[in-house]
Amino acid sequence: MSAETTPAELLDEAKVMEEVVSLCKRRGFIFQASEIYGGLRSCYDYGPAGVELKRNVKALWWRDVVTARSDVVGLDSAILQSPRVWEASGHLEGFTDPLVDCKDCRKRFRADHLDGDACPECGGALTDARDFNLMFQTHMGPVEEEGTAVYLRPETAQGIFTNFSNVLTSARMKPPFGIAQIGKSFRNEITPGNFVFRMREFEQMEMEFFVPPSDEQHWYEHWKAERMDWYVRYGADPGRLRWRDHDADELAHYSTACADIEYRFPFGWSELEGVACRTDFDLKRHQEASGKDLSYFDQQEGERYLPWVIEPAAGVDRAALTFLVDAYDREDTGKEIRTVLRLHPELAPVQVAVFPLVRKEGMPEKADEIVAALRGRFRVATEAKQSIGKRYRRQDELGTPFCVTVDGDTITDDTVTVRDRDSMEQERVPVAELETVLAQRAAAWSRSR
Amino acid sequence: MSAETTPAELLDEAKVMEEVVSLCKRRGFIFQASEIYGGLRSCYDYGPAGVELKRNVKALWWRDVVTARSDVVGLDSAILQSPRVWEASGHLEGFTDPLVDCKDCRKRFRADHLDGDACPECGGALTDARDFNLMFQTHMGPVEEEGTAVYLRPETAQGIFTNFSNVLTSARMKPPFGIAQIGKSFRNEITPGNFVFRMREFEQMEMEFFVPPSDEQHWYEHWKAERMDWYVRYGADPGRLRWRDHDADELAHYSTACADIEYRFPFGWSELEGVACRTDFDLKRHQEASGKDLSYFDQQEGERYLPWVIEPAAGVDRAALTFLVDAYDREDTGKEIRTVLRLHPELAPVQVAVFPLVRKEGMPEKADEIVAALRGRFRVATEAKQSIGKRYRRQDELGTPFCVTVDGDTITDDTVTVRDRDSMEQERVPVAELETVLAQRAAAWSRSR
Repeated sequence: MSAETTPAELLDEAKVMEEVVSLCKRRGFIFQASEIYGGLRSCYDYGPAGVELKRNVKALWWRDVVTARSDVVGLDSAILQSPRVWEASGHLEGFTDPLVDCKDCRKRFRADHLDGDACPECGGALTDARDFNLMFQTHMGPVEEEGTAVYLRPETAQGIFTNFSNVLTSARMKPPFGIAQIGKSFRNEITPGNFVFRMREFEQMEMEFFVPPSDEQHWYEHWKAERMDWYVRYGADPGRLRWRDHDADELAHYSTACADIEYRFPFGWSELEGVACRTDFDLKRHQEASGKDLSYFDQQEGERYLPWVIEPAAGVDRAALTFLVDAYDREDTGKEIRTVLRLHPELAPVQVAVFPLVRKEGMPEKADEIVAALRGRFRVATEAKQSIGKRYRRQDELGTPFCVTVDGDTITDDTVTVRDRDSMEQERVPVAELETVLAQRAAAWSRSR
Repeated sequence: MSAETTPAELLDEAKVMEEVVSLCKRRGFIFQASEIYGGLRSCYDYGPAGVELKRNVKALWWRDVVTARSDVVGLDSAILQSPRVWEASGHLEGFTDPLVDCKDCRKRFRADHLDGDACPECGGALTDARDFNLMFQTHMGPVEEEGTAVYLRPETAQGIFTNFSNVLTSARMKPPFGIAQIGKSFRNEITPGNFVFRMREFEQMEMEFFVPPSDEQHWYEHWKAERMDWYVRYGADPGRLRWRDHDADELAHYSTACADIEYRFPFGWSELEGVACRTDFDLKRHQEASGKDLSYFDQQEGERYLPWVIEPAAGVDRAALTFLVDAYDREDTGKEIRTVLRLHPELAPVQVAVFPLVRKEGMPEKADEIVAALRGRFRVATEAKQSIGKRYRRQDELGTPFCVTVDGDTITDDTVTVRDRDSMEQERVPVAELETVLAQRAAAWSRSR
């Protein structure tokens, strides 16, 4: 932030994460949960700017994956489900991490993350590995006794499988079709970390696409292309995105193929989204466990089958973090180092900030008029305090693509200054044309690198 | 549903709830959670139609309470917070229901819901009442031991209070201003029931409006008027809505006033939303418990104070249920009894359904063209199977305000039939004018009773 920063430091990846975390707190994107009480490890609260960014991420996903298509419908299943769901899905038995304790310092580690067989903290001897289930358990009903245990879902996907027949019937769908869901999931991770990248409470955007078994490969390729394109469409740098195919020994036993979209975060290449071929594993398990017929009868082919499934599973928080990190930039303007979030206009918490140059001479009233006129179409904010330069800098850090300034001339000739976040160029625009000009510029936006 | 239904039955309130529940499952609004496993009591999943209805309820609340105003910002705090939050808020100690057990049949009841001192089931003797905390408890981290207990939040409000200072600073707000949040909360109710009215997992829309202490009454009246108007604006029958002021002995000790918006559900008048004056109770408690200064310094007045709070607290599920129940209608068309959801066009899961009359002669292709053209502006669906009458009936039950039918004439003269859900009237409209006509009709919609 200071002018003393050297150009070399601008590109220092190692510092970027720290700076992004700091900006997130300063501008109201993300705060530590329960911060006034010292925080709760691995949980975060989204502030006024962050909640809008996250809403935009979710709205774009929903629009592109559900609303804009005729072959995908939505669902919103409960976080609390019958324990029999997790028994059938295999989570009760198999959703575990192997843990070891240090016999000396008592610290606990994931066995599969250790390099050797000694404690990485004190060098002490370690216990044998034990399986630790990652599902949070709680109790439902007034008495904590056998049979009242329920779990916070570790993924939204199973709520889709259990509702497969209900959706098929009520929404009159036939394969190939998808059921999409956005919602919170919980995993009691041993080693959460990297800001909102790995949290114990997080939000997923999952879609199960049900297809005739023979169509699996076609739809796998379709959704892989579609999902990679989605991140690029909203501004993520293609040079920081890549596919990583799962090795054969990494695949779940029921899965025929799986690939992760990875993003090069400042802390390294990490999974952003997985696209998996799950075959008919889940429907088959639930059919067996529930005794309910979950098959689909194809009247045209006269054939009854359990559909196979392609699953693109994304994280809301990881997507938001990707767009934040990717948009983060520091630039030497010649006068200072400015910090700017080059967010896609559809992702920006505020799309247009309207400023009266000074708080007199009818400027605040005119600014309010413009705010009211633009509000139906854009996310608009207004700010009247401090110098115009400081207000621009703050909106740069919020990622606001356009600032509109009302000055003395506005009162006489009904024009305003539109300032572009990325180029910092300013142009005089008649108020009557403002909405059209802003809409055109937003639509034409592309990230220059 | 059947033609045998007599007119007297049409108005039978006692049957309405049963019918609404049945329609909700049939048309994909709401399913029992984990239904294929026999269900999980008091938990529900929203199907393809229900998730869209709920999304619309939340989007309208967010637009009207947050985006359309300059004095309210949003927040999204985590469900899991430090246990110290619930200690300070009083929930750990006081968020309890008094429970009694029957000594004979072992059944459990809320002491404050019993008429006498004997078991309502078997007449047996009851134990003394014990306090039962309604918060779900779970454990975070790899070991279930002292100090790892965390709770699922029983309300979203406390996440707002703990972030008060962070929001004040980062978003540069000054009282009077509000912080709004939509999110899941959990209460281990002893007696959940009435469909989605009282669930153990539910979604809240809460806003804390921070004001100088002297402005409390003004803002209390403002938000009462605003919130009642909101339900009426989106179609709820004013004749089924009323205010119920809390009696002095019902008020929390820190509260100076509280009133509930009640709706006359088929199961009786019940709370839909509460508007409360909470004084500075919450901020004061968190300031004391955390040791952090949560006061606001008013530079103009040169005064430092803890703001007082007006809280409108609504339930997403209750609002959705209200709109569903209120929109539910059965009507004798002369030929049959039709079931119709007279939902406000902004709430309807599907706003426009486009039908090719038959699946040939270019009609499906033309219908697809119209769907693509309308999709940017409306929530659109298309359906090609079954008779046009059956398709109309199904869309009536989904609450779709407009059906557009493509027929043989469309191919030659480029006009379509627009059928109105409420009046069942049909009108011929040029395809070129369709978007405008539909937008005008949707904007002009009002509920005739």
